Amino acid sequence: MFIRNTWYVAGWSGEVPADGFLARTILNTPLALWRDAQGHVVAFEDMCCHRGAPLSRGRREGDCVRCLYHGLLFDRSGKCVEVPSQDLVPANARVRTFPIVERHHWIWIWMGDVEKADAALVPDTHWLDDPAWRSIKGGYTHYDANYMLICDNLLDLAHLPYVHPTTLGGSEDYAKGQVKVERIERGVRVTRWALDIAPPPFIQKVRPFAGNVDRWNTYDFLVPGIFLMDSGMAPVGTGAPEGKLVDAARFHSCQALTPENENATHYFFGQPHDFALDRPDVTQSVHDSVAEAFEEDRAMVTAQARNLEKRPDFRMVPIRADGALSQYRWIVERMLEAEAQPAPTRPVVSSAAS
Amino acid sequence: MFIRNTWYVAGWSGEVPADGFLARTILNTPLALWRDAQGHVVAFEDMCCHRGAPLSRGRREGDCVRCLYHGLLFDRSGKCVEVPSQDLVPANARVRTFPIVERHHWIWIWMGDVEKADAALVPDTHWLDDPAWRSIKGGYTHYDANYMLICDNLLDLAHLPYVHPTTLGGSEDYAKGQVKVERIERGVRVTRWALDIAPPPFIQKVRPFAGNVDRWNTYDFLVPGIFLMDSGMAPVGTGAPEGKLVDAARFHSCQALTPENENATHYFFGQPHDFALDRPDVTQSVHDSVAEAFEEDRAMVTAQARNLEKRPDFRMVPIRADGALSQYRWIVERMLEAEAQPAPTRPVVSSAAS
Amino acid sequence: MFIRNTWYVAGWSGEVPADGFLARTILNTPLALWRDAQGHVVAFEDMCCHRGAPLSRGRREGDCVRCLYHGLLFDRSGKCVEVPSQDLVPANARVRTFPIVERHHWIWIWMGDVEKADAALVPDTHWLDDPAWRSIKGGYTHYDANYMLICDNLLDLAHLPYVHPTTLGGSEDYAKGQVKVERIERGVRVTRWALDIAPPPFIQKVRPFAGNVDRWNTYDFLVPGIFLMDSGMAPVGTGAPEGKLVDAARFHSCQALTPENENATHYFFGQPHDFALDRPDVTQSVHDSVAEAFEEDRAMVTAQARNLEKRPDFRMVPIRADGALSQYRWIVERMLEAEAQPAPTRPVVSSAAS
Repeated sequence: MFIRNTWYVAGWSGEVPADGFLARTILNTPLALWRDAQGHVVAFEDMCCHRGAPLSRGRREGDCVRCLYHGLLFDRSGKCVEVPSQDLVPANARVRTFPIVERHHWIWIWMGDVEKADAALVPDTHWLDDPAWRSIKGGYTHYDANYMLICDNLLDLAHLPYVHPTTLGGSEDYAKGQVKVERIERGVRVTRWALDIAPPPFIQKVRPFAGNVDRWNTYDFLVPGIFLMDSGMAPVGTGAPEGKLVDAARFHSCQALTPENENATHYFFGQPHDFALDRPDVTQSVHDSVAEAFEEDRAMVTAQARNLEKRPDFRMVPIRADGALSQYRWIVERMLEAEAQPAPTRPVVSSAAS
Repeated sequence: MFIRNTWYVAGWSGEVPADGFLARTILNTPLALWRDAQGHVVAFEDMCCHRGAPLSRGRREGDCVRCLYHGLLFDRSGKCVEVPSQDLVPANARVRTFPIVERHHWIWIWMGDVEKADAALVPDTHWLDDPAWRSIKGGYTHYDANYMLICDNLLDLAHLPYVHPTTLGGSEDYAKGQVKVERIERGVRVTRWALDIAPPPFIQKVRPFAGNVDRWNTYDFLVPGIFLMDSGMAPVGTGAPEGKLVDAARFHSCQALTPENENATHYFFGQPHDFALDRPDVTQSVHDSVAEAFEEDRAMVTAQARNLEKRPDFRMVPIRADGALSQYRWIVERMLEAEAQPAPTRPVVSSAAS
Repeated sequence: MFIRNTWYVAGWSGEVPADGFLARTILNTPLALWRDAQGHVVAFEDMCCHRGAPLSRGRREGDCVRCLYHGLLFDRSGKCVEVPSQDLVPANARVRTFPIVERHHWIWIWMGDVEKADAALVPDTHWLDDPAWRSIKGGYTHYDANYMLICDNLLDLAHLPYVHPTTLGGSEDYAKGQVKVERIERGVRVTRWALDIAPPPFIQKVRPFAGNVDRWNTYDFLVPGIFLMDSGMAPVGTGAPEGKLVDAARFHSCQALTPENENATHYFFGQPHDFALDRPDVTQSVHDSVAEAFEEDRAMVTAQARNLEKRPDFRMVPIRADGALSQYRWIVERMLEAEAQPAPTRPVVSSAAS
């Protein structure tokens, strides 16, 4: 069960070439992403309407794509415009297309009702594309686990010192920090402060603090698994909790989970920072630390997933730190229920592109 | 669901050694093929009747096979003739055997009712074994896909220029050629002519034509997946369509699909040619081109199969070129239905060998 | 379906480190085995009660284990004693523990009702730990097969000459030996004598006999798959069958099958011998021969398992040599039935450790 009427990250802009295709499965739907002559990304279901052959093995011809199984040609709207062995093209010969928004190096796709696809609902990730911030593009990892377990992971950062002691974590006092959870539109907002705490190892590598810091992690976690976090640290007692940033190091992480299917998940991430903008080595080090930490998460969450597969009757014991994940799971369940209800005026799903 | 009362190709003659076994699963039935003292191929179900151990891990003893788990000995009819630890052999101790016909380097097996196994129903593949033709023996590939998707592939050669542009295909005009489809006994006959067309790359490698050719592909496609094709090309306008072959290059391809199970298929093939009979390099080149092309098919059809697994509700849009495959699928369905009906006089299935 | 109220071998003593964990799945239950400060083995279900994360990725802290996902701390009884982000620990926060007996280098675990765990039921394997015998510790192999197929293998040693001609077997006359099968408490006793027979290859490597031998294999096969065998050989006619051992070589094999799940099995083994006690090379050679033979078994039984998966309707034909396995399977079925009956006074399963 997936929420369909929402924007998912389908890939990094750099993954869809000017010619050729990005083949990727999202919500168990095989997709072929390509660029038309103007460079606009088009998303086709990656199945020729004739026999289901993958169009990502096809050939771009201007604003059209030819299936390289039996040669059917499709325009950018998905309509078949040529069948080699006959004069007339069947009226129902078309491939499904999906609305796309390309913004700030990410390609967003709408897997639900086309008429509900509203570009205004795309979350703001401008930090990936803002000269005041620096980050490596293309951060990606793949999980063999249901995406909700990764949501859980991101919704309780108390795991930082335990899972990431040598990267993002550090002192275990961090887990005792103060956390505020608020309900926001399509998600939750988590605000976490750890005061007078040792700086985490990853920042010491690139921008060392001499003593303890005040550290914050404030993030919005939005349906369908979008994590947007303002975080950082400043020398202890210099006023960060009151909003006064002196000698601080600040990040604005952008992360997105996109289910491949019930048991696998695409994970896109960037870690923009606002300091040392002229130091590519710092940008790379920050990215590498995050990527290393995400492999630590992946090992833990994947092992958890294998455990839960063996014990489908396992009953989890909630703790107070589950507040954000409990709220988020509640939100997801309500949205799934709402989508399962046929809306009285819901029209037939159209295949028109955005 | 498989048609059972038909001959399947179980392997190449060279695959069954004088001593030892060929282990192969056909229609999800594990088989052990071996040769008796006279060199005749015997097909056992590859399961000792005692505990199901594979007899292909056993030992030939004259016209008998000893299971090398607990030592039971079976004669060529499948009857157990010795149990090491006891004097009497249980009357029901026997392994199932299957009728076999070995002909023209292929071993055919009958997986259905033994009394219906009629050697006269074995399709003619004498080109694999005729001094007027040359081919490499042993052509084989394995698909992780249901065999019907491969039947579909072979039943519409319009895919040649798209899937095989550098091997069997060539000009995309080929896809516009004239096709005639006829119903024949246990299958369909497809006749395809492409006139005044560029010769395909594979022939140019070994027997180049100076200009365009008239090219034909005429084949019978027979249950359960036997493809027998007369094909070739002659200089354009020299009378090939009227049956006058001048300076032509001709092939008689023999191909056979044998389901391993619902999701995997054995594919046997040879490509006899009638020219350059004294040139082993030509024979090898032709074979290699075909083998290379079949890997191209395999990549496409396997990707198609993975797509269809993800979208079991996918509705294919038929085009005119599907004529042969539609007819063939109709034939297969009728035969499956007929086998599902218990014939009024159908006897109990016997395990006797042919 | 597994018998739960019985002792299973969970591992070799050497597999559970002083610090750290042995992670192993038994009866489809993930387990984390560790040693407390006194060195006693503790068995936790390898799932933190909070979100199911594996505790075997955790950290020993004295007699406690900290989950390295969100930092919960558990004492050796499985009770959660600390949750980093809150003052009170939920009353139901505990992980399941399992009774353990460590004896003679093996760690035994009780997967059933805790109150029925009686250490007196642990089978005697003192030969693994007796100065009058020598063996290599740590013998282990893993099967991708249901454990009952391996029980079958061990319950009919007539397979020795066929499966192990160059290791444990030898002359095929062995299969004709006299076998006595007796019902004993929780299992069967098999007594097998082969008189005036060639000595098996493995003994000739280390302690050659000049001529034929009288060979015996007497073993108890106990629920849930414990094989304890007195075996050996003496020069023919020197009185071994009457209990007079002259110039004999004797072994006391200890083997244990522990299901990982319905389709996979842990196999622990040692092969104590009572001769050449000062010759480590002999001990190693004996062990290597057994390990080599067990790979021969594994190849056969795994192939058998794959066959049976393809043919779930396969009907086995019993032979006389199946006596022991038939009796043993009957015992297992009765015990499974008995466990399926809720005992009238059966209390709620407690999670207390032994």
